[in-house]
Parts: sequence; structure tokens; C-alpha cells
Amino acid sequence: MKLEISKEELRNFLLHATDEQLAEMIEFIHPVDILEVIHEYKEDEDVIMKRLPSEILAEIVDEEEDEEKYGLLSHFSDTEQMVILEEMSSDEITDLVSVLDEAESEDVLSKMNVEDRQEVRELLSYDADTAGGLMATEFISLSQHMSVLQTLEYLQKAAQDAEMAYYLYVVDQSNVLTGVVSLREIVAHSFDTLIRDIANPNVISVPASTDQEEVARIFSKYSFLMMPVVDEHDHILGVITVDDVMDIIEEENTEDIHRLAQINEEEKVDGSLIESLKSRLPWLFINLLTAFLASSVVAVFSGTIEKVVALAAVNPIIAGMGGNAGTQSLTIVVRGIALGELTGDNARRVFFKEFGVGILSGVSIGLVVALICGVMQQNPIFGLVVGLAMLLNMAFATIAGYAVPVILKKINVDPALASSVFVTTVTDVLGFFFFLGLATLFLPYLI
Amino acid sequence: MKLEISKEELRNFLLHATDEQLAEMIEFIHPVDILEVIHEYKEDEDVIMKRLPSEILAEIVDEEEDEEKYGLLSHFSDTEQMVILEEMSSDEITDLVSVLDEAESEDVLSKMNVEDRQEVRELLSYDADTAGGLMATEFISLSQHMSVLQTLEYLQKAAQDAEMAYYLYVVDQSNVLTGVVSLREIVAHSFDTLIRDIANPNVISVPASTDQEEVARIFSKYSFLMMPVVDEHDHILGVITVDDVMDIIEEENTEDIHRLAQINEEEKVDGSLIESLKSRLPWLFINLLTAFLASSVVAVFSGTIEKVVALAAVNPIIAGMGGNAGTQSLTIVVRGIALGELTGDNARRVFFKEFGVGILSGVSIGLVVALICGVMQQNPIFGLVVGLAMLLNMAFATIAGYAVPVILKKINVDPALASSVFVTTVTDVLGFFFFLGLATLFLPYLI
Repeated sequence: MKLEISKEELRNFLLHATDEQLAEMIEFIHPVDILEVIHEYKEDEDVIMKRLPSEILAEIVDEEEDEEKYGLLSHFSDTEQMVILEEMSSDEITDLVSVLDEAESEDVLSKMNVEDRQEVRELLSYDADTAGGLMATEFISLSQHMSVLQTLEYLQKAAQDAEMAYYLYVVDQSNVLTGVVSLREIVAHSFDTLIRDIANPNVISVPASTDQEEVARIFSKYSFLMMPVVDEHDHILGVITVDDVMDIIEEENTEDIHRLAQINEEEKVDGSLIESLKSRLPWLFINLLTAFLASSVVAVFSGTIEKVVALAAVNPIIAGMGGNAGTQSLTIVVRGIALGELTGDNARRVFFKEFGVGILSGVSIGLVVALICGVMQQNPIFGLVVGLAMLLNMAFATIAGYAVPVILKKINVDPALASSVFVTTVTDVLGFFFFLGLATLFLPYLI
Repeated sequence: MKLEISKEELRNFLLHATDEQLAEMIEFIHPVDILEVIHEYKEDEDVIMKRLPSEILAEIVDEEEDEEKYGLLSHFSDTEQMVILEEMSSDEITDLVSVLDEAESEDVLSKMNVEDRQEVRELLSYDADTAGGLMATEFISLSQHMSVLQTLEYLQKAAQDAEMAYYLYVVDQSNVLTGVVSLREIVAHSFDTLIRDIANPNVISVPASTDQEEVARIFSKYSFLMMPVVDEHDHILGVITVDDVMDIIEEENTEDIHRLAQINEEEKVDGSLIESLKSRLPWLFINLLTAFLASSVVAVFSGTIEKVVALAAVNPIIAGMGGNAGTQSLTIVVRGIALGELTGDNARRVFFKEFGVGILSGVSIGLVVALICGVMQQNPIFGLVVGLAMLLNMAFATIAGYAVPVILKKINVDPALASSVFVTTVTDVLGFFFFLGLATLFLPYLI
């Protein structure tokens, strides 16, 4: 029985179902779907929210965009807010609080019990882009002396609270992480099996300061659902779950794609005009600077252009094709770095491959343009100049496409950031220089 | 006790540990780490592999790149291969077989038992980019009449075989999917609870033909760990797990990033020179065509350039800045479509926002270049022509940046594919046309 109902039907159900019907069905409706109804039917938001139990409200608040969470909460009285906050996990509340101003965040924190507040304050102290900023403090820890049956009985009491309790962590008396056991292992073993005998002592964990990109890479590499975060003495601090990691992967990818195109990582397609301008205009002005730089190279050779005006029409072909080849190299290298596929081991090989691609595409594209331009101008020397400039520019384009992101990475700047400005500056400046310089050298044969 | 050992130490352990030590520890070493050792120390591959039990070998084969899996298997005798294949899950074997030629794949299939072979043949019939191509057929189904205790006892027998058995599916007598219950729910309830009472009847599932991008979107939206795949009558066919979805997300992102830069989605940073050329040269030739198109616009106005040679130096600024603005719009729109954030509902608003960005950046950038060029040429009309051309080109650039991917999407072409060729063609052709056209109109004032 698949619940295939439209937003409208779900709205009607949420508004008009009897209290009994609602109580019976509500746990089977996904909070994301309820949130979509609330977004679509703003006018019913208040009525619908007031009908929902606090644990569902906590999940809805969690699913909402961070910026809107506080707004959802404010539908409720202080006492009701306290109940909802009680149901939320520590990392969710941290996400909520982190986007609020000081007064608002104090307001939220004041509605939590002392222990939870302390936990959230600690989580807030970690950088949001690190393992510490991602983790939740709700996890289940066991002693190695427990049996499967004891564990199951314990879970019947404790599991509701814990974050996706598919992995349980074995700790010693001083809370040092000594093993991990999956819920699947537990249920696959007989009741009298000891945790000690099925726990994996090789727990892969990360320190709280680990960058979120590195966290995502470890999750992908090992196909993890969950990973513990530890302090310098291997005490378990919290856990990161795969659903958070999926969000990070999309976030990091958006960041790279945006930066390669010179827009800020936070810009949203449905954001405001002002936000878009703030995100893009600074980059456009940087590009304008580099465009004037390239333009000044052309200006230097204006004497040559005056004599052979056909050069002006071919000029953008040389620069543009270099830009394309450079962007191709740049992109494969930036992506290779992001995926961890470009390493110290293969760097030399990749460089020579990129350079080879530059030479060989330069030769093929160069031959074609030389032929076309030579025939059109009825002058083989004109063709030669065009072809040679194309070859040189494409070879240097791939070198720049490789070198710029690799150097940025070395100096700890995101390779996706500003790489394309540098590379197209190189290809424009060099393209114009090679072409017009060669034309000036061969000028007697071109007039 | 965190196992922090280097590849070299792990290699030494795998080579020199006694059989007893190896048997005791091997299940706690992650197969990915063993695979890395085998890659690093090619010379020890055979010796190490021969020491490992078949279930570990099956996991190592699964972790290896699809193209290399068959090579790993071939270290073993036919009988040993049969045991390893027995340990592998249906989707893993399908991945393995799908990249082999006919003789090799028949060889692999012949080493499987009839039932498994039948399953793999069925999985191979689905398109690899769809839910059917992603799913595994190993899952656990329950009857709603079972109790928690009965389920736990059943899992102790069956769970080892099933794919990440964190969700169990409730089916009726005719195998129709009627509910889902998580392992966490099961262990959180008392032993006499009936599955019927804790199962969620609202199971979100997908048909086998669903595109993998859509599958990834549903996983992200609902934070799923697992999702069932059904036929048209709601019979459960298999399950997709979150680890496969993480791979898809990276794959789809790589595809978009590569296509935006005009390289093929399969190109690898550490691939061969020939592969890179195959991936990039066709795109470069397409760009060459469009570059000649833009160049011919310049050629049309060569009479104007002959008279005012300064135009040749400013020309690339106009086209280049349009290209930058167009790429910005294009990228935010392509990413918005990929993330499902650009919808029918906000399309109009996004279009006008992009157009507004084009106008406003055109005005600001246009003013600056008008001023600079006007002063440098000591001719306000020259500045006016430059500024006006810049404004027009940037406005049209953002329109093209919005329209091209949206139109490609409408005609069911990936918006990331070829979008940038179209957009830069528009900005080059229009940029040259606006600038040189205006210059021709105002020619008397420029000489």
C-alpha cells in the first residue's frame, strides 16, 4: 500500500482528519512531505502545525532550511518550544542556532535543559565545516562485556534517542573508543554472544578538527553509514551520519562548480537580484582588469594590425581556442584534485599528458586554421603564422590549466577558486602576443 | 584501539602474519585498505590474495574498479572463483559482468549457480543508469504477522546474505510490498510486538525504470539509507542502498562539471593521452567552427577597423566580458536544474532576475569601460560606443545563459551538455556585432 497522494490531498488530510485518524497515521507521513505542504499552503501553516505532535514538529524543523527554522518554532508558546527542542538532536539545534543573531540564539538556548544547552554550546565551538561541526552527540555506547541479549534490551530503552543507531560504539571504563559493532551484526548473532566477540577493534574515526571534505572522502571510500568523532585521547565525542555527508558532497560540488564559473558558492538560482550582483560583480571587475591587460597587448601591435587588418578577425580565434583548451585542462585537474585522483604519485605523468594533449590538439587545430586562413588570405605565410600561434597558445594553455590549480592547492587556496581567471588571462595575453608578435616578425610577407 | 598502520605495515602483516593471526584479524581490516596495498605492491598481489578467505576476496573484488574486477578474479582457479562469486551480491556481479566482453561474461556466468545466474541476467536487462541497474536482489522480506522475536530469530539466520539489512520489507502473500520496518524500530520494541504494529505502510519506492539522478534526489530529500524498487504491480524487485547513491551523486556531478568545460564525462585525470584527445578534440573542433563564425562578423567590419584600429584592441574586452557574464548565468541555471531548485514555479522570476543582473552589471561594467576607453582615446563618442556595446552584450549574455540550458532541458538534452558552446557563441557573435556595428554607425565621430 503505497501512499501516493498529492500535496493537496495531504493538506486536506492534515487539516480535516479527525484527531484519531491523525494520531494513527502521522508517524507514517514523512516530515519532508508535510514541510512541502506547509510551504505550498502558507495560509494553513499555523493550523497544520498546531495539530502535529512535538516529535513530528521537531523533525519538520530539522528538515527546514536553517534560515527558516526559527520562524517555524515561533508559531509556538515557550513551553511548546521547549518540548520541541527536547525532541531535536544536538546537531540539529546547533544548525538552527548557528544562523541566528545573538538575542535569538540566547532565546533558543534558554529554552533547553542545562545538559542539552551545554552540549549545544560545545558543538557551536567547532568550525561548522569540520567533523566537530557536523557531529551529533546522541550515540549509543556499550561495554564489551555485554551480551547480545543485554544489548537488545538496552536498545529497547535507549535507541529512540540516538542518531540512526545502526552502529554502536564499544568504550572502556574511561570512555576511550575501543570498538564498533553494527546493529546488523548484533541481530545476526545468538543472544548469548558477547559484544567483545563480535566488535571490530579497528574503528576508523576522525578528530573533531577534520575538514568536512576529508570526512566526505572517508565516507565514500569506506561506504560508511556513520563514523565516530574523537578527541586527541580517542574519547568519543559524537557521530557523523551519512545523510549529513550527502549534503556536504552536494555543497562541495556546488562550491566547485560555482567557483569555476566565478560566482560565489552561496548564490542560489532562486535568490534575489541583489545577492546575485554581490556574488558576480566583483568577479566581473577582476575579469575586466585582465581583459584590459590582454587588450593592451593588442594595442601594442596596433601598427601591425593597421597594415594587415585581417589579423583583427583571426585574433579572437587564437585566444578563444586557447581559452577552451585551458579550461578543459583546468577542469579535469580541479576535479581530479577534488576527487583525490590527482596525487603526488601521478602528478608528473598527468602534467606530461596535459602538455601532450596541448601539443597534439595544437597541431591538429593549428593545421586546420593554417589551411583555412592561408587559403582565405591566399597567403601561405599568413596560414603559417596563424597555425604556429595556435600551437604555441594551446600548448601553454594546457600547461596553465595544469599548473594554476596545482599551485593554488599548494598554497592552500581552493583550486576551483580564481583558477579560470588566471588561465584565461594566460591564454588571452599569450594568444594575442604569439599571434601578433609572429605577424610582426613576418610582416613583410603578410602585406 | 585504532588500527593506525601504514600501507607498508599492512602489507607486512598480510604477507608474514601466521595463518592464525590472519584468521583472527582479517575481518577487522577494511577490504578497501587491502585493495590499496595490492595496488601499491603489485608484486605481492598474488601471494596476498591467495592467503585471504573467500568472503574477503568477494569484498575486495567489489571495491575494485569495474574494469579491473575480472583481472582480480583470474588469480584463482575455477572452483575458487565459484566460491568467491557465491559470496558476492547480485548487483556487484552485474557491475563486474557489464564491462566484460561476451566470452568473459559467459565465463563468469557459467561459474554461478542457476538461481544467481538467472538473477544477474535479469539485472543486466536494466539500463545501468536506472533504479533497476542499481538495485541488488538481496533484501529481507517479512510477513506482517511475525513478532519482533520471530524477526530477530529469522535475521540471525538470514541477515548475513542481505544487502545492508537496516530496513526490512513487509510483503503480502503475493509478494506485494505493503510496508517497511527499520531494524532500529525492531530492536526498540519488546519481543512480543507484532511487525504489523510497527511497520510503516507508507513505503516510498521507485519503478525499475527511474533515472539514477531521480533516485539520488529522492535519497537526498528523505535522507534514506535504502529504498525498494518495484514493478508495475508493486512487487518488490530489489533494493538500492545509500553507498551506491553517493557514487551516483559524485558521478553526476563530475558529468556536469566536465560537460560545462566541454570534456567527456568519462575522462579521468590519470587517463591516457589518447583518451583525453578523444574526449576533447571533437569539442575543440566544434568551438573552432563557432570561433570562425564570430571571426566572420569581425571580418565584415574590417573596413571600420582599418579606419579606427583601436577598435581591434577593445573588441576582445566586449566579447570576453559577455562570455563571463553568460557563463555565470549559465552555471547558476544548470546547477539549479540539477539540484531541482529551478522549477516551473520560479522560472519566470529567475529569468527576470538573470536579465536584471545582465542589465545592472552591463550598466556598471559599461560605465567603467566607457570612461576608461573614452579617456584613453580622448573621444567621448568612442567611450559611448564601447559602453553601449558592453551593456547590450551583457544583457543578451544573461538571457542566453538562462535560455540555452532551459531549452536543452525542455528537449530532453542534458543542460550541462553543449550549453557553454552555445552561450559563448552568442556572446562572441553579438559582442562583435554590437560593438563594431555601433562603431560603424558612429564612424564619422571616431576617426
